[in-house]
Amino acid sequence: MTHFMNRKDDMVTDAIDGVIATSGGALARLDGYPHIRVVIRSDWTKSQVALVSGGGSGHEPAHAGFVGAGMLTAAVCGDIFASPSVDAVLAGILAVTGPAGCLLIVKNYTGDRLNFGLAAERARAFGYKVSMVVVDDDIALPDLPQARGVAGTLFVHKIAGALAEQGADLDTVTKTAERVISGIRSIGMSLDTCTVPGSPKENRIPAGMAELGLGIHGEAGVEQIPYSDARQAIASVADKLAVTMSDGPHVALLNNLGGTSVLEMAVLASELVKSKIGDKIKLIVGPATLMTSLAMRGFSISVYEIKAEDEALLTKPCPIAAWPGCVKLAPETILPLPDGLAPIKAFPSPHARTKEFLTACCNILIASEGDLNALDAKSGDGDTGSTLAGASRALLEAMDSLPLADHTQLYRAIGQELSQTMGGSSGVLLAIFFAAAGDASSAGMPMRSALQAGLERMQEIGGAKPGDRTMIDALMPALDALEDGLPPAAKAARAGANHTATLTKANAGRASYINAEQLEGHIDPGAEAVARLFEHLAE
Amino acid sequence: MTHFMNRKDDMVTDAIDGVIATSGGALARLDGYPHIRVVIRSDWTKSQVALVSGGGSGHEPAHAGFVGAGMLTAAVCGDIFASPSVDAVLAGILAVTGPAGCLLIVKNYTGDRLNFGLAAERARAFGYKVSMVVVDDDIALPDLPQARGVAGTLFVHKIAGALAEQGADLDTVTKTAERVISGIRSIGMSLDTCTVPGSPKENRIPAGMAELGLGIHGEAGVEQIPYSDARQAIASVADKLAVTMSDGPHVALLNNLGGTSVLEMAVLASELVKSKIGDKIKLIVGPATLMTSLAMRGFSISVYEIKAEDEALLTKPCPIAAWPGCVKLAPETILPLPDGLAPIKAFPSPHARTKEFLTACCNILIASEGDLNALDAKSGDGDTGSTLAGASRALLEAMDSLPLADHTQLYRAIGQELSQTMGGSSGVLLAIFFAAAGDASSAGMPMRSALQAGLERMQEIGGAKPGDRTMIDALMPALDALEDGLPPAAKAARAGANHTATLTKANAGRASYINAEQLEGHIDPGAEAVARLFEHLAE
Repeated sequence: MTHFMNRKDDMVTDAIDGVIATSGGALARLDGYPHIRVVIRSDWTKSQVALVSGGGSGHEPAHAGFVGAGMLTAAVCGDIFASPSVDAVLAGILAVTGPAGCLLIVKNYTGDRLNFGLAAERARAFGYKVSMVVVDDDIALPDLPQARGVAGTLFVHKIAGALAEQGADLDTVTKTAERVISGIRSIGMSLDTCTVPGSPKENRIPAGMAELGLGIHGEAGVEQIPYSDARQAIASVADKLAVTMSDGPHVALLNNLGGTSVLEMAVLASELVKSKIGDKIKLIVGPATLMTSLAMRGFSISVYEIKAEDEALLTKPCPIAAWPGCVKLAPETILPLPDGLAPIKAFPSPHARTKEFLTACCNILIASEGDLNALDAKSGDGDTGSTLAGASRALLEAMDSLPLADHTQLYRAIGQELSQTMGGSSGVLLAIFFAAAGDASSAGMPMRSALQAGLERMQEIGGAKPGDRTMIDALMPALDALEDGLPPAAKAARAGANHTATLTKANAGRASYINAEQLEGHIDPGAEAVARLFEHLAE
Repeated sequence: MTHFMNRKDDMVTDAIDGVIATSGGALARLDGYPHIRVVIRSDWTKSQVALVSGGGSGHEPAHAGFVGAGMLTAAVCGDIFASPSVDAVLAGILAVTGPAGCLLIVKNYTGDRLNFGLAAERARAFGYKVSMVVVDDDIALPDLPQARGVAGTLFVHKIAGALAEQGADLDTVTKTAERVISGIRSIGMSLDTCTVPGSPKENRIPAGMAELGLGIHGEAGVEQIPYSDARQAIASVADKLAVTMSDGPHVALLNNLGGTSVLEMAVLASELVKSKIGDKIKLIVGPATLMTSLAMRGFSISVYEIKAEDEALLTKPCPIAAWPGCVKLAPETILPLPDGLAPIKAFPSPHARTKEFLTACCNILIASEGDLNALDAKSGDGDTGSTLAGASRALLEAMDSLPLADHTQLYRAIGQELSQTMGGSSGVLLAIFFAAAGDASSAGMPMRSALQAGLERMQEIGGAKPGDRTMIDALMPALDALEDGLPPAAKAARAGANHTATLTKANAGRASYINAEQLEGHIDPGAEAVARLFEHLAE
């Protein structure tokens, strides 16, 4: 499997450079590439308790993406899925720790515990106040005394971060972090394994199965279960979480493990709200990409019983782009449909001459059905004749319900009729043509100008121009010539239609997918229909 | 390929429900599922120009994710990759349009143009002021008169949205949108095709190849090119964009097409900044997931020459979680490494008795190398003896450079020595043990208490408890008994070590992966080492 990277060994430093370059100056880094990969808030003044987190890379935006006012002070980045060195962690601590001290937030993996732990010792030997908390929110392996630290870590970043930003002392921040950690429960599910850059793809999960209770380093899930749909996926996860949850209000964090589409995450969010734990969820973070396992097609849910003092800290806005905010879960507001969707039916009004004219037009198109279909077969799917004839028959049937005596209303009524009976792009285009003609007519324009306004709007919306081998090539010259009467208009329409047979490059409509040889010598069926209309009307 | 969804036909409505439920009450929807899928700002008062966008689904967070103050007023969602109906668009327009009118922002696809276009006509027939702009930013097919609308649409949403929010009139908002559209250029690249839910995966792109100039609906790219690395990928895209760019300052938008890991996106960002167009980029949006093609493993870049009046609108903060902000591209700030990373070497100080004692300890461990390796082979990889012997030999060599006369400094120095020479988890753990003992000693604790403080810290960081079948099972009782002298300590250490042979469930360290039968009857090698140390010292 290919990845967007250069040398694998440079991937983490390249990515950090990208994160910093696009941070708008909010982030800086320590010198010391490639061994020291520490991202730091540019505006840090050491006046509050510093929060340092980190660990292996591959979990982005965690943790560098959460460095900023109100969350982390610094992130120490290891190689992909590997703990950073003691020296790197120590560099991070020394760079950001002032008199107020420093809290290390560590996910519960042996390497991270040891390297952050030893770095803390070293920093203490220099006289720094350093405390360390270990996040162990994963409930996949309930009997394991050392549960893994996964996406619930974000609750600690945000709550402890907001508290530190307010100026709380190290002891308060540490105790709060420990209290939060003791209440977080997380579990993940995936439809596919993640692929480490430079390694071959592992296909561990068969089609139709999902892994439940997986880690964020490609470790296998605790179990593989048959997967049926999003509802069942959420139910499996909710079942595991439910037994660990008290009756109080909770905050939930819905995390994209990296490769799940935003569309799917929204479906999962909808199911989470409706799940058996949905009524305990008062606040939600996400769905968002927070703690990934590279581009894994999975998700995780973390829950935490929220106390009043946590809520203010968790919901406090912060300027970190990767943090999606924490909002109240609210019932869906459904607004009534606006009036006007059912088209206003104009009152029928009889008008003999208009009826005669319209009937003639319809009959011309019905009579041309076979010829137009044959022409269309040269460049399209051979149905132009049937489409126009069908619409004409429907119009004939509707004739006596039309507002024949009122041109403005009539244009609009024809447009509505065509959009309902004709279908396809051409139906919509003709509906636009007549609707715009109606608008122009209501503004007082005479018939020819109104039709020209319709043509203009149809071109604007449809995107076809004269010369693009469409009905416009006949209709536009016909309307121009109509000033001098029907016979010149008919002549112009015919000339325009015939000209389309020489146009071998169609730029709009389906004929644009056909090559030149197939088009040459054949008149565009739409243009032919227009020409026949004008020719018969002129007779 | 499996997706997180329920019935395919419900996927879009399910997803909209999820988006609304997690919006904190910021979003509502129109009645009329499943045909009418319109997401609306809950706080909308019709007092400004309304902005309505939408189109086929599958591009999330576009467009529903960008509904909110300062961007869209409403989003009209079609099926996956299919335009919404005229009625759905009309419902959206009628629901949000007040006296100030409405701007439709449409991506240049025939279905969207026609359906939004006809809906606009219908709304006009009701007397509403409606204008429409069509985004055609894709430069993949330079000769195509109707370029597609892709991720550059976000520039229009943000700039026109901020302008409308300020109370600009429809004409101004429309003209601005048109001006922005005329300047946007976008192109995308992907390593894999996207898979439509319910359809089989199409493997169109062979390994080692990438598609350049693809659409956002799974359409094939204009060309397949060999893919080597992130630098070349960005160069291919930058080459296409460069020829369209003026010399002025630009804003760039780096978009995740849905399935690219955040880590990779950051690498691409880094390369973009260094690319041939990097020095023209003054502002950047992303990298972020903005206009996706489901979970496609690709990216797109959009550029726009920024005018002063656009910059304020584009960078204006807005409360929409999916909008990552627009920031200035800034040179990377590299902070100097802090002092103190090179461990403070204490001045050597001779002390005959301490040297004798330490030397004895080292020699005991060196003599036990073979036995400890053999024990470790029962439950681990058989190297405990060699690891301890190696560290002991190194300590013997370093003996005369140690601060032997100062216990506090000596603990720390031994810890540093072990962390450098011993490697692995046990080296770090012993380093933590001695460092913490040094801290305790510097606080005035006597030797036994200092060592107990070290043990406590080691347990805290390493996570092992008594009974977990580790060296702690010998060391803790030995230190407890040391109050009464070395012989009782040696006795306690031996009893503790022997007890580990009865512990068949290891909870920490590598032995935790071994089953009970393999462990029974074998003393833990770390505990045995401790027992031997105390036994020999007591002799």
